[in-house]
Amino acid sequence: MKKKINIGLLGLGSIGSGVYKVLSKHRRDYKRKLGFDVALKKIAVKNKRKKRSVKVPSSLLTTDANSVINDPDVDIVVELIGGIKPAKTLILNAIKNKKHVVTANKELMAMHGKELFDAANKNKVDLYFEASVGGGIPIIKPLKDSLAANKITKIMGIVNGTTNYILSKMSEEGISYKQALSEAQDRGYAEANPQDDVGGGDAASKIAILASIAFNSRVIKDKVFVEGITSITPKDIDYATDMGHVIKLLAIAKHDDDKAEVRVHPTMIKKEHPLASVNGAFNAIFVEGDSVGEVMFFGQGAGSLPTASAVVSDVMEVVKNIKQGVSGKRM
Amino acid sequence: MKKKINIGLLGLGSIGSGVYKVLSKHRRDYKRKLGFDVALKKIAVKNKRKKRSVKVPSSLLTTDANSVINDPDVDIVVELIGGIKPAKTLILNAIKNKKHVVTANKELMAMHGKELFDAANKNKVDLYFEASVGGGIPIIKPLKDSLAANKITKIMGIVNGTTNYILSKMSEEGISYKQALSEAQDRGYAEANPQDDVGGGDAASKIAILASIAFNSRVIKDKVFVEGITSITPKDIDYATDMGHVIKLLAIAKHDDDKAEVRVHPTMIKKEHPLASVNGAFNAIFVEGDSVGEVMFFGQGAGSLPTASAVVSDVMEVVKNIKQGVSGKRM
Repeated sequence: MKKKINIGLLGLGSIGSGVYKVLSKHRRDYKRKLGFDVALKKIAVKNKRKKRSVKVPSSLLTTDANSVINDPDVDIVVELIGGIKPAKTLILNAIKNKKHVVTANKELMAMHGKELFDAANKNKVDLYFEASVGGGIPIIKPLKDSLAANKITKIMGIVNGTTNYILSKMSEEGISYKQALSEAQDRGYAEANPQDDVGGGDAASKIAILASIAFNSRVIKDKVFVEGITSITPKDIDYATDMGHVIKLLAIAKHDDDKAEVRVHPTMIKKEHPLASVNGAFNAIFVEGDSVGEVMFFGQGAGSLPTASAVVSDVMEVVKNIKQGVSGKRM
Repeated sequence: MKKKINIGLLGLGSIGSGVYKVLSKHRRDYKRKLGFDVALKKIAVKNKRKKRSVKVPSSLLTTDANSVINDPDVDIVVELIGGIKPAKTLILNAIKNKKHVVTANKELMAMHGKELFDAANKNKVDLYFEASVGGGIPIIKPLKDSLAANKITKIMGIVNGTTNYILSKMSEEGISYKQALSEAQDRGYAEANPQDDVGGGDAASKIAILASIAFNSRVIKDKVFVEGITSITPKDIDYATDMGHVIKLLAIAKHDDDKAEVRVHPTMIKKEHPLASVNGAFNAIFVEGDSVGEVMFFGQGAGSLPTASAVVSDVMEVVKNIKQGVSGKRM
């Protein structure tokens, strides 16, 4: 058996750069741990000359994503370009080429997860996506494995850092939504077009993914009830404060009598609730199971290195599966 | 391949009863999920006639623990009697008999983990112990798998519910250590002989286990610096409160320049710190990694059903490994 695993990376933005850094920094550690050398073989980018936070040998770069997924030497494709097009086609073709796939693409998993899983199962390859929810916070694997004994009855979390930052700022400084958004944009916590975050779509994708796993049923993003934070006013915040509450954008999934209810909306929660003190760009996810009761997972829900932590840990899991001949069997 | 997995249980106390309940309640669900019927075959108890919170057919009970670990039909031995003797010998003999082992025994894992692992590796069987730290909170597996990409630099947590309950009571009600202990005993949060909890030994076992995994080195309980909570006075609590702090019994493991430092002692932490609001019988564990930053795991650190959640999830993992022919390879 060959002792080298080649990674093909699609995208070298914030998360991609983080993955590059982590893989470079720990290459020797991983080799010792796994018995396999995990090497970056090829990276597809839009623009080879773009300035980046990492120094990458230009010999690794290509503007042709297909050359990555068709490269016979590539064992694992790491998809970090986001969105549906062309990510979906690239992943499906990579799977057809018997490549294992690790992705951070929440929208794609929340919309077309089933199709991708069916393809992965058919081709006996792995498809992992821990980074798609909660950045570096371990949530998908714990939900699948560590809490497997439970019937999961509820998931409730703050899963979007941008809106949490904006709501925290509005609450701490008494400023308007517009001012807080503009500050978030200045600091890089919100994108120039913030609609997917502030409108709740990002949170909807994430809770759809978690609900699908927890309830072992297919919950797609479009079926999630969504209300964003764009109409929250300082008056609403004051009102909540007066009542001893804070306003948070919560993503909620409940399961009773085999009926699932999945929604995202601003919610007043008591100041004493553990989620009330989750501020700024942090994420926190409560999971309620019939045996375990409530457990909470907390950490940085986004960012280059935290998200790369989840991506690279998934890559290591895929390598372990290859080594043991159980690819496609443990997802 | 036979589609039935037989469990032999050692101990039917609080956790054992929880395991019985969970396995009985979800037997059909697990069969559907795993493709294997997970059945309780035999349960070793001290006294067959003892009153218990669960109704167990007396045909399952035996007072001879050896008849469980020597039963050729038993595939997985679940050890829930605790302590070193006779648990260690029973587990080693079970392993020699090619039984997989799931245990909640923190003291044993913290003192003799290496010997048990060596035996499991030699005999190609699984040895899982998620329930030994943090009750139902997923921590051991996330640390091993979901954070595998990181160099873990620090672990800091509240891992003993008894002491946390006592300190919370002292702080909320201004009562003495003795009064709070007696209240904890009345409510079943502290044992008649509370020494292992209040002296810090229980927390020392748990942090030794976590440090061994996180730093990939062998940290045994006896090498952990330990100071308990028995000499904390209401004056200490008042003093901390005046300074905007609370007193918590923290278990801490740090790793710098390949030097590990592992200790348990009462610590003043700021009221704003997330660990400050972890009250009563709850546990919370912070993990710091070089990529992920800080993540926190929170939940019920003890109790019948929460701990059973971890035990039975481990059992399901062992079944998955049997099914895929990777027993002893994924620990």
